[in-house]
Amino acid sequence: MKRLRYAMVGGSKGSFIGPVHRMAIRMDNLADLVAGAFSRDPKKNAETAGELGLSAEHVHPDWASLLAAEKDNIDFLAVCTPNDSHYEIAKAALEAGLDVMCEKPLSMTVAEAEELGRLARRKRRILGIPFSYSGMPMVKFARELVAQGEIGKVCKIVLEYNQGSFRKIDLTKPLDVRNAWKMDPRRSGPSCAVADIGVHAFHMLEYVTGLEVKEVLADLSSFAPGNRLEDDASILLRFKGGAKALLNVSKVATGEENGLRLRVYGEKASLHWNQEENDYLVLKSPFEPHRTYSRKAPYMKTASASFARTSRIPAGHHEGFMEAFANIYDEFCAAVQTRTPRDFPGAHEGVRTMRFVEAVLTSHTAGGVWTKI
Amino acid sequence: MKRLRYAMVGGSKGSFIGPVHRMAIRMDNLADLVAGAFSRDPKKNAETAGELGLSAEHVHPDWASLLAAEKDNIDFLAVCTPNDSHYEIAKAALEAGLDVMCEKPLSMTVAEAEELGRLARRKRRILGIPFSYSGMPMVKFARELVAQGEIGKVCKIVLEYNQGSFRKIDLTKPLDVRNAWKMDPRRSGPSCAVADIGVHAFHMLEYVTGLEVKEVLADLSSFAPGNRLEDDASILLRFKGGAKALLNVSKVATGEENGLRLRVYGEKASLHWNQEENDYLVLKSPFEPHRTYSRKAPYMKTASASFARTSRIPAGHHEGFMEAFANIYDEFCAAVQTRTPRDFPGAHEGVRTMRFVEAVLTSHTAGGVWTKI
Amino acid sequence: MKRLRYAMVGGSKGSFIGPVHRMAIRMDNLADLVAGAFSRDPKKNAETAGELGLSAEHVHPDWASLLAAEKDNIDFLAVCTPNDSHYEIAKAALEAGLDVMCEKPLSMTVAEAEELGRLARRKRRILGIPFSYSGMPMVKFARELVAQGEIGKVCKIVLEYNQGSFRKIDLTKPLDVRNAWKMDPRRSGPSCAVADIGVHAFHMLEYVTGLEVKEVLADLSSFAPGNRLEDDASILLRFKGGAKALLNVSKVATGEENGLRLRVYGEKASLHWNQEENDYLVLKSPFEPHRTYSRKAPYMKTASASFARTSRIPAGHHEGFMEAFANIYDEFCAAVQTRTPRDFPGAHEGVRTMRFVEAVLTSHTAGGVWTKI
Amino acid sequence: MKRLRYAMVGGSKGSFIGPVHRMAIRMDNLADLVAGAFSRDPKKNAETAGELGLSAEHVHPDWASLLAAEKDNIDFLAVCTPNDSHYEIAKAALEAGLDVMCEKPLSMTVAEAEELGRLARRKRRILGIPFSYSGMPMVKFARELVAQGEIGKVCKIVLEYNQGSFRKIDLTKPLDVRNAWKMDPRRSGPSCAVADIGVHAFHMLEYVTGLEVKEVLADLSSFAPGNRLEDDASILLRFKGGAKALLNVSKVATGEENGLRLRVYGEKASLHWNQEENDYLVLKSPFEPHRTYSRKAPYMKTASASFARTSRIPAGHHEGFMEAFANIYDEFCAAVQTRTPRDFPGAHEGVRTMRFVEAVLTSHTAGGVWTKI
Repeated sequence: MKRLRYAMVGGSKGSFIGPVHRMAIRMDNLADLVAGAFSRDPKKNAETAGELGLSAEHVHPDWASLLAAEKDNIDFLAVCTPNDSHYEIAKAALEAGLDVMCEKPLSMTVAEAEELGRLARRKRRILGIPFSYSGMPMVKFARELVAQGEIGKVCKIVLEYNQGSFRKIDLTKPLDVRNAWKMDPRRSGPSCAVADIGVHAFHMLEYVTGLEVKEVLADLSSFAPGNRLEDDASILLRFKGGAKALLNVSKVATGEENGLRLRVYGEKASLHWNQEENDYLVLKSPFEPHRTYSRKAPYMKTASASFARTSRIPAGHHEGFMEAFANIYDEFCAAVQTRTPRDFPGAHEGVRTMRFVEAVLTSHTAGGVWTKI
Repeated sequence: MKRLRYAMVGGSKGSFIGPVHRMAIRMDNLADLVAGAFSRDPKKNAETAGELGLSAEHVHPDWASLLAAEKDNIDFLAVCTPNDSHYEIAKAALEAGLDVMCEKPLSMTVAEAEELGRLARRKRRILGIPFSYSGMPMVKFARELVAQGEIGKVCKIVLEYNQGSFRKIDLTKPLDVRNAWKMDPRRSGPSCAVADIGVHAFHMLEYVTGLEVKEVLADLSSFAPGNRLEDDASILLRFKGGAKALLNVSKVATGEENGLRLRVYGEKASLHWNQEENDYLVLKSPFEPHRTYSRKAPYMKTASASFARTSRIPAGHHEGFMEAFANIYDEFCAAVQTRTPRDFPGAHEGVRTMRFVEAVLTSHTAGGVWTKI
Repeated sequence: MKRLRYAMVGGSKGSFIGPVHRMAIRMDNLADLVAGAFSRDPKKNAETAGELGLSAEHVHPDWASLLAAEKDNIDFLAVCTPNDSHYEIAKAALEAGLDVMCEKPLSMTVAEAEELGRLARRKRRILGIPFSYSGMPMVKFARELVAQGEIGKVCKIVLEYNQGSFRKIDLTKPLDVRNAWKMDPRRSGPSCAVADIGVHAFHMLEYVTGLEVKEVLADLSSFAPGNRLEDDASILLRFKGGAKALLNVSKVATGEENGLRLRVYGEKASLHWNQEENDYLVLKSPFEPHRTYSRKAPYMKTASASFARTSRIPAGHHEGFMEAFANIYDEFCAAVQTRTPRDFPGAHEGVRTMRFVEAVLTSHTAGGVWTKI
Repeated sequence: MKRLRYAMVGGSKGSFIGPVHRMAIRMDNLADLVAGAFSRDPKKNAETAGELGLSAEHVHPDWASLLAAEKDNIDFLAVCTPNDSHYEIAKAALEAGLDVMCEKPLSMTVAEAEELGRLARRKRRILGIPFSYSGMPMVKFARELVAQGEIGKVCKIVLEYNQGSFRKIDLTKPLDVRNAWKMDPRRSGPSCAVADIGVHAFHMLEYVTGLEVKEVLADLSSFAPGNRLEDDASILLRFKGGAKALLNVSKVATGEENGLRLRVYGEKASLHWNQEENDYLVLKSPFEPHRTYSRKAPYMKTASASFARTSRIPAGHHEGFMEAFANIYDEFCAAVQTRTPRDFPGAHEGVRTMRFVEAVLTSHTAGGVWTKI
């Protein structure tokens, strides 16, 4: 099979997510980076390219130039810019006939997300969104257990994504620029915490349970000084079929690191997963000792082929965030090569998560009312 | 100081909470049980009395006979019956001039709770309610840390009380009678999960933060087959002063045992406490390693005298639910003897928790609207 | 059945273990304290008696007076003095026809322990030793699982009892007197850490595995300033039948609280128990998810009657050190009343643990050689 | 700086450690794989090369051919074969003027290891050994805390490396061939568990404490059916300066995955690290709440530059075994490029660990006697 080639927009050195994309792709030897427009700052752009071994002719000042010059030279484009440019870049790339991996949130509005979805379908292009936590093996395994009926009908989900990142911001330090733009409505869009991390949680809800959220009710807050967007959200959710969920999303959960925690309560048992101990999944039933499943333990052989591909090394040797990201790219790159559906989040998930963001904002603005999604 | 004497209503052998009251009182050698009306079933009543070494003349067929015969023989009455009789028994005992420790919920309605509060004040009698988890040393310590400003202004609280007890009910077995009456509106009142365990959580919210809840919004569910009352509640709360909380209360959290977990996020740090690891309290700040406080460790000496009284044995030797219950009784009995205020939940907390129950029911019935408390 | 009466020697207020004995006995309403010789300090003696509600005529200046005056008034004697008087008090009490619960270590030498064992048998008296951790329900359950073959033939045990208590001693403070005598060969005997806590570990080894230790090899150290006895021991053990163990015992494990941890590796699975999370037992097998058993969870019904008696309250409501101690006394008191064997440590265990202490000292003195036990 | 080129011997597809080396090198974009002799099985060799995108001319039937053909084409050689060929391959590569990363154990005997060390010095070549756990950030941080005196003088270390891998072997399955050769003295050498995983533990002991082991005493066992080498070792150690350690090494710790756990007890505090939660380090002191340090949390900024390089992504996003391996290679490759000493295990550590293996075997054979190392 032909070796894949890709270019990146955004993601200069010092940023968080750009290097993660590159590392994930390299780890599993999936594709070669052949061009980039990493920063609008020419010096930063050049330095990043230099570190990555790109020759000057493949370093471009902006995404438009990059697309113009490289569209026939690459198989896909990785979009790692702030939220406000996702839509226009992804749109241009799809129109140029490229497959695209675009950072979340997919767009600023539902309408934009829907347009990208339609465009991808029309052009038969692949649009991926790295909801990275759904690449974690034990999240996939949770989805399997639910689908197999192991915990019975799902009744209640308690989910939280608690970060304290806005409690440690020191705007005098360059590193904090990573966070500062998220508080700026022009760069971030109408939502901060919900668009930034709430979408991960929402995607996980539907991915693991296989259920569809019907309506939401939200209470939003801005606790961080100077933040004009919400940095904390308490959200109630109702699914088609009667299940319910409670979701806490916060960027001011002081002292928390990356506290994404999922509990799914079914009629027969419940599942408990904590991103900070991502290689384990706990099943609790009143009728037997709690079970702790461990990634790639010998008894995990029965899981699906899709799950098996996600593990590189034996149980007890931790895999983490990078491997999860690589798992998303593994599936995406396989789809790019084979043009067949694979297990990674795409346009549908991009639209669903944007609808979630809008419904949350609408519910809150109306004073906390149930809002269809 | 004169040794205290008490009688008990309800709490026959085989019940959960009656034996707990008696063990707690004995553990710290606080009072002598001198009379009882443990069950309306004469055989059960006699057997319980026999095991406890009471002579027949002090075993009564019902609470009215007990009060008539023993009111001058006892210092206080412990009420361990189902919810529907709390009000009338407590009222009669207060009117008879007795101090009362009454199980939660204090009554079926706010009006009844308020009446009991007024009655206790008028008669200068002491009314205690064993919100037992607030007797746990590390809960008291959390309250101290908040009061001392150690975590800064409180912004958000995430609290949950998840039990799976209704998922293991087998009504063909006698033991499950313990749970079955809680599903019966005549015995349990208009609320099941919220009145049964939600009140513990609500009390903890106000006790630890020192803040007052202003309004609530609730979404209730009945997931357990045959349950006509709610067994699951998703609740949003707003405090005076701007703090907010998210509360999950469930008796159908399959596989959970007694999952009462509290997280309090302040501007400077957060506190994390889990009832199932009750001897520890974690403080998380972005600016230093997470701290795990351990009950009665050498560095805990700086805590208040009230806290110091709650610990019997050194750190590393677990104290649990029984000691917490005894801590409530320690303070209650000290109040009975000294007629001075002490650190235990009383009439005020009884009224607050009943207001909470009513506001939750009102909010849900109205389709999920913010409801004053 | 006749209600039991007991007296106590040692255990004045402020001491650790005396109050524990009394609380444990009261918690389960097992016996009444009717006399005591709590301290050689008359003031402390009187104060302790006062707090316990004993009248002056039943408070004695020393154990000999107590035995002379009370031997026909009591069913058993609880011995809570430092190590150096265990032997003489237990001996006198047995000769006076009393049953005895004597603190560990049973004596200063193997010869003394053996003599007490013979004396108890000849006088048909009951001698109990509160190796309290073997009263913990999940330790008993571990013993059951091993006996039932659930983990296959036992191969290796890794056991540790790590305390940091000697690292926080401040001899200018009264509380630390609790620890100081343990460093004094005249009060403590020829061994400090091994006699003080190593015996708990050794008893647990033989209790849980049902195997007999054949020989030991030890390397002892004195790390705490001024300590003339060992405060740290690295010990290898070999069992009859080929199993082996590794045991670490330390009172200078800085920062540890009461770190008694047991792991038993069998051919099919392993068991993992940690005293600081005493209500849980983990079973690990390569062929299924790790199982976490929880005390008194619904699925624990299959365990033995002996196990069932050890639990008072439902899973999720922590029982701890006090309940474990009460469990030892429950069995001891049942034996006192019924004169039939019950499940508590007695003379045999007292002799075995003293042989262990002597073998460890012999091995170390010889430079680290395998020594029969 | 010139981009590095390397070749690999051993490590065909399906093996454990070869792919790990390659992933680690790719993750951080350190070097390009340009040649290989992955397996003596020509089919496997070719398939591996194919998957890695190597052209046929750079795939060699054995290490000798590879060295002959590629020595001027590569900067270093990665040796991923079974133990019995490490010495001869490393020797030939060093003599050919190459830097070498050689899997542990470095050789079959101390004499061979010493010879390789001398050879590397004489040829001014770099010899690295991937004791991967010392590449974990929190292990490096532990080393820093000890060196800074944060825990005071080190007294006692409790270390264990417990795997259950030999308890799940099913020799009818191809995967288990990974483990089977370790039981064969011809391939594995005179030691199994100690040479395979004990060396990791020993290296960690000296690396973290900065102390030198003086003598050891060992008790070895062969519990796995058919194993002619030891699969379980109980080891006592004494350091220069008076510190002591207890080490358990086992491949028959049924149900364990990769249980490498370190505890270092100093005069002021202790450090606790568990490989299966590798991103955290706990410091326990009696005088303050236990501290949990988290990799790359904001307060970790004070750590050394060497530590800082080991982290890629923020705290809360797990890094694991692959990143640790990459950290070893980062330092090794920097040394290869700069010819200056860096922080990775090399010839000295190779010799020390082989001396440890030999001393353990000698001690055991002599019946358990203290043996100089």
